[in-house]
Amino acid sequence: MTAPFRYDVVEMSTEEIEAEREVFGGLAQSIRELAEASLRTTIDPEAADQVRHEIEALTERLRAAQIPGSFGVQLTSGGTVRGHGNAVVGLRNPVAVPLEIERTGDGRARSEFVLNALYEGPPTMVHGGVIALVLDQVFGEAAADGGTPGMTGTLTLRYRKNTPLGKCSAEAWIDRREGVKTFVRGVMRDADGETTVEAEGVFILPRWAREALQRHESAPPRFE
Amino acid sequence: MTAPFRYDVVEMSTEEIEAEREVFGGLAQSIRELAEASLRTTIDPEAADQVRHEIEALTERLRAAQIPGSFGVQLTSGGTVRGHGNAVVGLRNPVAVPLEIERTGDGRARSEFVLNALYEGPPTMVHGGVIALVLDQVFGEAAADGGTPGMTGTLTLRYRKNTPLGKCSAEAWIDRREGVKTFVRGVMRDADGETTVEAEGVFILPRWAREALQRHESAPPRFE
Repeated sequence: MTAPFRYDVVEMSTEEIEAEREVFGGLAQSIRELAEASLRTTIDPEAADQVRHEIEALTERLRAAQIPGSFGVQLTSGGTVRGHGNAVVGLRNPVAVPLEIERTGDGRARSEFVLNALYEGPPTMVHGGVIALVLDQVFGEAAADGGTPGMTGTLTLRYRKNTPLGKCSAEAWIDRREGVKTFVRGVMRDADGETTVEAEGVFILPRWAREALQRHESAPPRFE
Repeated sequence: MTAPFRYDVVEMSTEEIEAEREVFGGLAQSIRELAEASLRTTIDPEAADQVRHEIEALTERLRAAQIPGSFGVQLTSGGTVRGHGNAVVGLRNPVAVPLEIERTGDGRARSEFVLNALYEGPPTMVHGGVIALVLDQVFGEAAADGGTPGMTGTLTLRYRKNTPLGKCSAEAWIDRREGVKTFVRGVMRDADGETTVEAEGVFILPRWAREALQRHESAPPRFE
């Protein structure tokens, strides 16, 4: 938490962002479906090897032109955040579920989503670590939604019961603030709406970010 | 934690498991590389759309024959656990890194791995939730390695500093036991070996599992 992140500013219109979502978001979605199909397939080994070779050829075509490092987070000229690479919500990230997180504007965030076979831990159940992954993101967005964005300082999870694969939901809200710390509470729920995991997190805005915000007298960036 | 999981027993020889790793593990790895390439590609939208259509056709070929639900966890006739679908260590799961976890036999587990652009949160940094995901798995394996396997009861993470994308490692060890609870401590480290996150977890073997183990007078299953 000592080095500031680089948020590049990209000049993209609303139409350009929408087109990116459609084409490259669609590409990521097709890979999510391919991943799930590969986990569950029982086709014979020769056929699987043939599919693998064709996948390797497609990877080469995608690598014909690419950004040098990780996707990062860009601020558009309109001031919205383009976090399409994020491991939980990134539309362009095939590993991301991706979660669509609804923010209420008063320090609360929630999301409904489906966790399929790719997110399994114990048989037919969501991996406990996947629940932590999802809640960390939803908690961070609740803190940001309340006007006090921050990095995760601590996260404590209490697993009450298993969460079956399938439809799930997560919700988080700001419980209280103490100085630079924002305390967030929240839950994971199963398809029946029963709470399976309770959690609390502390989010802290690093000093460099507080100073940068004061210097620019700017509001925290909006997430699109 | 009330309903027992079903661990199917599969009749597979060591050679058959090795062949599955080679072919279907290789298929999963090719999809991991495709996913990373798709996140970073800057090819033009028409070319991306063409790749997407070819991916969709490959998905159809994989779906020609598949298991009905999630991958689950099987016990081989030799008594080893085949958890190839697991979201963190599953060789057949394209979402899994996958981690190779070394167990010492005395309640300690560790792993070295690379987290690429697919696991990003803040720009150039590992997503905090991905760290929780990885540690949950390594912690559970430390508990099992010490002869007291269990489900995650609680998990508490303290984020000391950011973890840059790239080479990372995780280590966990049994701190103490109290009745059915196994207390595990551990850390995440960056490429320089510096600790970035400290964590503690409590793992609990559910009553039905304790009873089943006593009934069968069997040792906990070995992970292959």
